[in-house]
Amino acid sequence: MDVELVDWMGDDVSIVQSAKVSTLGWDNGDPNNGNDKVAGLINFLMRDRHGTPFEHNAITFRVSAPLFVFYEWHRHRVGWSYNEESARYRELDSVFYVPAANRSLRQIGKPGAYTFESGSQQQYITTVDAHKSIAECAWHDYQEMLKAGVAREVARNVLPVSTYKTMYATCNLRSLFSLLSLRWAHPLSTVPTFPLREIEMVAEQMDVLARGLFPLAFSAFDRNGRVGP
Amino acid sequence: MDVELVDWMGDDVSIVQSAKVSTLGWDNGDPNNGNDKVAGLINFLMRDRHGTPFEHNAITFRVSAPLFVFYEWHRHRVGWSYNEESARYRELDSVFYVPAANRSLRQIGKPGAYTFESGSQQQYITTVDAHKSIAECAWHDYQEMLKAGVAREVARNVLPVSTYKTMYATCNLRSLFSLLSLRWAHPLSTVPTFPLREIEMVAEQMDVLARGLFPLAFSAFDRNGRVGP
Amino acid sequence: MDVELVDWMGDDVSIVQSAKVSTLGWDNGDPNNGNDKVAGLINFLMRDRHGTPFEHNAITFRVSAPLFVFYEWHRHRVGWSYNEESARYRELDSVFYVPAANRSLRQIGKPGAYTFESGSQQQYITTVDAHKSIAECAWHDYQEMLKAGVAREVARNVLPVSTYKTMYATCNLRSLFSLLSLRWAHPLSTVPTFPLREIEMVAEQMDVLARGLFPLAFSAFDRNGRVGP
Amino acid sequence: MDVELVDWMGDDVSIVQSAKVSTLGWDNGDPNNGNDKVAGLINFLMRDRHGTPFEHNAITFRVSAPLFVFYEWHRHRVGWSYNEESARYRELDSVFYVPAANRSLRQIGKPGAYTFESGSQQQYITTVDAHKSIAECAWHDYQEMLKAGVAREVARNVLPVSTYKTMYATCNLRSLFSLLSLRWAHPLSTVPTFPLREIEMVAEQMDVLARGLFPLAFSAFDRNGRVGP
Repeated sequence: MDVELVDWMGDDVSIVQSAKVSTLGWDNGDPNNGNDKVAGLINFLMRDRHGTPFEHNAITFRVSAPLFVFYEWHRHRVGWSYNEESARYRELDSVFYVPAANRSLRQIGKPGAYTFESGSQQQYITTVDAHKSIAECAWHDYQEMLKAGVAREVARNVLPVSTYKTMYATCNLRSLFSLLSLRWAHPLSTVPTFPLREIEMVAEQMDVLARGLFPLAFSAFDRNGRVGP
Repeated sequence: MDVELVDWMGDDVSIVQSAKVSTLGWDNGDPNNGNDKVAGLINFLMRDRHGTPFEHNAITFRVSAPLFVFYEWHRHRVGWSYNEESARYRELDSVFYVPAANRSLRQIGKPGAYTFESGSQQQYITTVDAHKSIAECAWHDYQEMLKAGVAREVARNVLPVSTYKTMYATCNLRSLFSLLSLRWAHPLSTVPTFPLREIEMVAEQMDVLARGLFPLAFSAFDRNGRVGP
Repeated sequence: MDVELVDWMGDDVSIVQSAKVSTLGWDNGDPNNGNDKVAGLINFLMRDRHGTPFEHNAITFRVSAPLFVFYEWHRHRVGWSYNEESARYRELDSVFYVPAANRSLRQIGKPGAYTFESGSQQQYITTVDAHKSIAECAWHDYQEMLKAGVAREVARNVLPVSTYKTMYATCNLRSLFSLLSLRWAHPLSTVPTFPLREIEMVAEQMDVLARGLFPLAFSAFDRNGRVGP
Repeated sequence: MDVELVDWMGDDVSIVQSAKVSTLGWDNGDPNNGNDKVAGLINFLMRDRHGTPFEHNAITFRVSAPLFVFYEWHRHRVGWSYNEESARYRELDSVFYVPAANRSLRQIGKPGAYTFESGSQQQYITTVDAHKSIAECAWHDYQEMLKAGVAREVARNVLPVSTYKTMYATCNLRSLFSLLSLRWAHPLSTVPTFPLREIEMVAEQMDVLARGLFPLAFSAFDRNGRVGP
């Protein structure tokens, strides 16, 4: 998983500024009147679910991740824009996901109430072998079809969902908090969630990058149980 | 590809009724004053891009299609709701897409300006063999991992994007027209589009089913170049 | 405030059916296996924020309310469709909002932390007089301009925000719960909210009407602190 | 009408960069290879309705306009974020819209097929007098109620829709083009539209401001009939 910051607009003060339009109108004063006041107002907005002031900003990420991660990600429809490497327009690169040794492999329990535990050495070997072997076979057949003159959009059908792709994803803080709340079983979360580990790994990286840009908003997010406003 | 109608709300008259709120208010008269008037008003709304009257209705489809079709579909974010078979929650069925003999295999031209032409016999054989062989290998390894006690959400990583899934998709007429406009290179289209053949096959089926429910709206859609309002 | 049900699609069982696609795929069994099971699954979906199964349904309301209520309502952008009586397309009716005797008139406290209390007899008289007098003057001037041949879209500028209008509003259960959560300071709410009393009155009516269609979903909404999934 | 640029993200090159992810993947080369190539690709994207590359940017405007303009504006639900001066949270300013002498006052024709023509001197006087007189009466009664201790959210009910408010509005280029296409009867438009003159005045100002930031995208918008991608 690789996440990079491409561009962004706004900061903690801009959240306060857009909120103050409601209470102060056009000439809404100097928002830089001390971090305490900014932090306090942001915390109030987060706690009382005043979501719109968190929308007057933007973050563009460049992400590289397996298809099955993008597949979940794209279910976030509101406040997210996507442009993704196209298997119709270009030949993909031969990069495939193989679980690391610390990826929990055993699911204990049923949907909605389960935990994940480490796999045995044998389970890990079986898993890695299967991932590698299918990636190799699929890549070989993909190349064979391309060499035979078959269109990329047909040849790619054999590639596994572990194939990596690249994407630009643009969101605002409000839509980002919504994703982070659902896709990271964070210790500070006050609501249950059971994210796929691999999208959680991406969420962790986005949290770090965006937190650097909006530290007070993220601190309010943490303090309020990581439920989006 | 398999598309079925699950449920729906509204008809052509309901489009007129919601539009007439604008011009007549609460007591907006008997909309059933002749098909001619209903057809005429719907055509006017379509032509002049009055989109909202086409939103006060709903259609739920049940669809079975390969992952790579759903992947494109989910990029339609507005006015679409999805619930899809989960490879995390259940073991998938061993159903995979293999191109039919009439699937064009050769892409002539570059992105944005190309045509598709029939493949040779040899290209077709290569393509079918690859699809079948990878489906079998991947299914075998998927089963091996499941038998070894590896979690479904990890084992599924080896499955190809040709794997079939089932989905409930709910939309309204406005969001449906938007999809049909982009995903079907229909002879009556006045705007260029280069859809993936397999999503076009699904679009064709949805058009038939929804046209039966809203015949006048579809006729206006056709007459206005199949551009959504 | 007047709210009527125009049309709807789906019921409690359809929520379960769309959720079961995830876990059971296409042939997802008979959902009518006892109200207990349906109620239990809906409660689980609500509690764990599985929102999408609540989107495969639709409700169309016809509403008559003052402009200032619609103004707030239209800030709900996702999952809501609106068609409203147009002051550009038709002459409005002379119906205006006047607060009832039980409308609290005094706000004690500051934004984000206040209560509303009853006004004095004098405050009530002042308020009603002002509402009536401005409505009469504005209506008179509106009519004068119309009679003089001035366009409706210009003449209406003088009408107060207390003027009534009619609207068709279509939503799904998920978007409805989101509105009800924010616009009704309900005793069962576990999160703070300070809705305008007049939009709360509309919310109460929508709750009653939709609850009749989806009783188990509403009961789960109540039981989980009236926070939308 | 007063429109100011508050903040923005992206430029013409960023549109190309996000589009090139589709065709080139992660390392998508130097986009600054000549304005000709950038302009050509943007024109292709606009013409063939590739809308998503126009979403990886953001613009925040601060706007001052009458309520009836905001009321139309807020019907744009997708890709728009709003934070507006609240008549519940603050006492509004006594600024009201009065039509200028060049505002066409007579509507000739019926909904969907009409033109606007200049009013007579008498019509203009009637119109201005009515706007001023109601603004004064309403402001007086508003102040009376506030002085009597009546809550702002009740007192404001008497204010006319000509009252000015301030708003932060954030969009991306795609959602901005959609608004400009519908709300400006521009000579280069290839599709019919009948916007309210006052929202058109705001659209003109936003066009100028955003065109300065994305000149090639706006030139492609003009060249393709001012229909959003």
